[in-house]
Amino acid sequence: MTRHVPGTRHERPTTISDLAERELIDRIQQRLPPKPSWLLVGIGDDAAVVEPERNRADVLTVDALVEGVHFDRAFVPPEAIGHRALAVNLSDLAAMGAAPRLALLSFALPPTLPVADFDAIVCGLTTLAAKYRVHVAGGNLTRTSGPLVIDVTAIGTVKRRQVLTRDRARAGDELYVSGTIGGAAAGLQMLRTTLATTEDTGDTATVSSLVESYLRPEPRVRLGTLLSRNRAATACIDLSDGLGDAVRQLADASGVGATIDAAALPIAPAARAWFESRGADALAESMASDDYELLIAVHPRTRGRLATARRHAGVPLTRIGVCTPERAISIRSNGADSALPAGYSHFGR
Amino acid sequence: MTRHVPGTRHERPTTISDLAERELIDRIQQRLPPKPSWLLVGIGDDAAVVEPERNRADVLTVDALVEGVHFDRAFVPPEAIGHRALAVNLSDLAAMGAAPRLALLSFALPPTLPVADFDAIVCGLTTLAAKYRVHVAGGNLTRTSGPLVIDVTAIGTVKRRQVLTRDRARAGDELYVSGTIGGAAAGLQMLRTTLATTEDTGDTATVSSLVESYLRPEPRVRLGTLLSRNRAATACIDLSDGLGDAVRQLADASGVGATIDAAALPIAPAARAWFESRGADALAESMASDDYELLIAVHPRTRGRLATARRHAGVPLTRIGVCTPERAISIRSNGADSALPAGYSHFGR
Repeated sequence: MTRHVPGTRHERPTTISDLAERELIDRIQQRLPPKPSWLLVGIGDDAAVVEPERNRADVLTVDALVEGVHFDRAFVPPEAIGHRALAVNLSDLAAMGAAPRLALLSFALPPTLPVADFDAIVCGLTTLAAKYRVHVAGGNLTRTSGPLVIDVTAIGTVKRRQVLTRDRARAGDELYVSGTIGGAAAGLQMLRTTLATTEDTGDTATVSSLVESYLRPEPRVRLGTLLSRNRAATACIDLSDGLGDAVRQLADASGVGATIDAAALPIAPAARAWFESRGADALAESMASDDYELLIAVHPRTRGRLATARRHAGVPLTRIGVCTPERAISIRSNGADSALPAGYSHFGR
Repeated sequence: MTRHVPGTRHERPTTISDLAERELIDRIQQRLPPKPSWLLVGIGDDAAVVEPERNRADVLTVDALVEGVHFDRAFVPPEAIGHRALAVNLSDLAAMGAAPRLALLSFALPPTLPVADFDAIVCGLTTLAAKYRVHVAGGNLTRTSGPLVIDVTAIGTVKRRQVLTRDRARAGDELYVSGTIGGAAAGLQMLRTTLATTEDTGDTATVSSLVESYLRPEPRVRLGTLLSRNRAATACIDLSDGLGDAVRQLADASGVGATIDAAALPIAPAARAWFESRGADALAESMASDDYELLIAVHPRTRGRLATARRHAGVPLTRIGVCTPERAISIRSNGADSALPAGYSHFGR
């Protein structure tokens, strides 16, 4: 990352304060594909105008990434910041079974931010957008005296009878999680450790796989839309605040309890090795890790449909537990039940 | 406004850091009316799900208010911050001729923000939302180490053939502005002056009218939808960055020039008096004032329809100039033309 070097004027990179708002918007527009036909008015007017998709409901989500809270510019490359800012929203749409369609961007930019970093953030975001055919339809740029804030509103569509909510799990439903867990938390810890020390964090391939799962998580867009279409799931939620929190939210919303089988949890082997080498509790760390995976409740009778969705999406799904009529949420390890560790909370408690 | 007083524990107000995210979300939800039938899934899931309005296009806009850039908590009451954050978006929708429908909120909250201030921000926002039947459908709360950021995404609808864009003005079209200009800039200056000095800023009624136009601007929602329905306007834009900037944007987008008649500008008399008492240029200040008004281009033949819209909306409209085939933008004062003062820019230039 380029840095502002006060006093060495000839080395100072071009920063946000050197450009007009219009020039920054142009830099975003240059990276966008041609306007799709359903986007009646795109960037450049007071608002965007969009033709709704016939017979489908709109699904809307907004999430902000704040420097110092959700990422650290010291070790998260700007392109990964852009990727994550959109991915967190696409993951929310996937959890509702929605196909993503468009995004609005709202950036609060520190004046010292190098324009090269701004470009890289936009590049990370628009590259992921192109992959899932998400069109950037508009947005807002402002300056700030504080940390960089990247706010993304993402909009997708779903047939109204195929919406996946978190509140329809029933006692007896099985709980599945996609992919592996723990990678994001381990990757973040590795990046922090590498920054703080010159310590060797392990073999390069392992490091890069964990660090990648933190920096460039892949939202489960295809899996979410498949589950919605074939009605395999009774409830679905993403792991924004970790699997522990997701289980709690899904169970609470559905009015059920849950028992999780500790031995079944798909903790990424490299993440487990990393946590254990630090003397940390791999289970607790992985349950709080913000991997961009989905937690899915499935009626035992529709297991076959789940297998179909898994095959078409090409994503592993692991059965990790079951919904119970009693409201308690517990984790079973070596035959003994204990309370489920809580997820991450953005605020004080 | 309540303030954090370090060291005096018994006087310390409850702040954001004392509450969990869920508790803050509950405080927002308590202020919302019952969920309308078109809101299939509201606050509480991964995303909101909305039934589109039949035969209408969606109109989408996002705008952020950043503490220290768009408002100063020292003299802007928290309830006015919430009002302005939604109003700026409703004004954008009005400029497209759209009827507002829903909003998503994304707040980045400093941990020291008193919960009473948070509540007042939400109250200001939801009170304006209720007035225009805008439903808060979802959002995101995060903490920040920096200034308070209030990001609002607003969504409205319009018939696709009635969208008001800024790019269809033609040479010969007359330019109109709604309401008065200058009030927001004068009100802001008054608030700053009152804070900095004990100086008397004038008689109370005048002060309060100007200060109100800064703190609680009324977006021209009804006027915008009326103009869209009766096709009085060829182009429309709001004054987010001042009238000067709006004329330039509308003319540039439409490929025309414009001549503005200085004597015709509806500068609020109290604002003019305030600027002149400070030795400031009332014209330049008023042209850069971010009043929540609309600039409208009208073909002379549809002037009758404009009068109808004005009557039904109950908003004064003043003819301030004309679009010209030559691309220059000028202001005519005492028979002499000069370049139009530029509007406000969020960035360096």
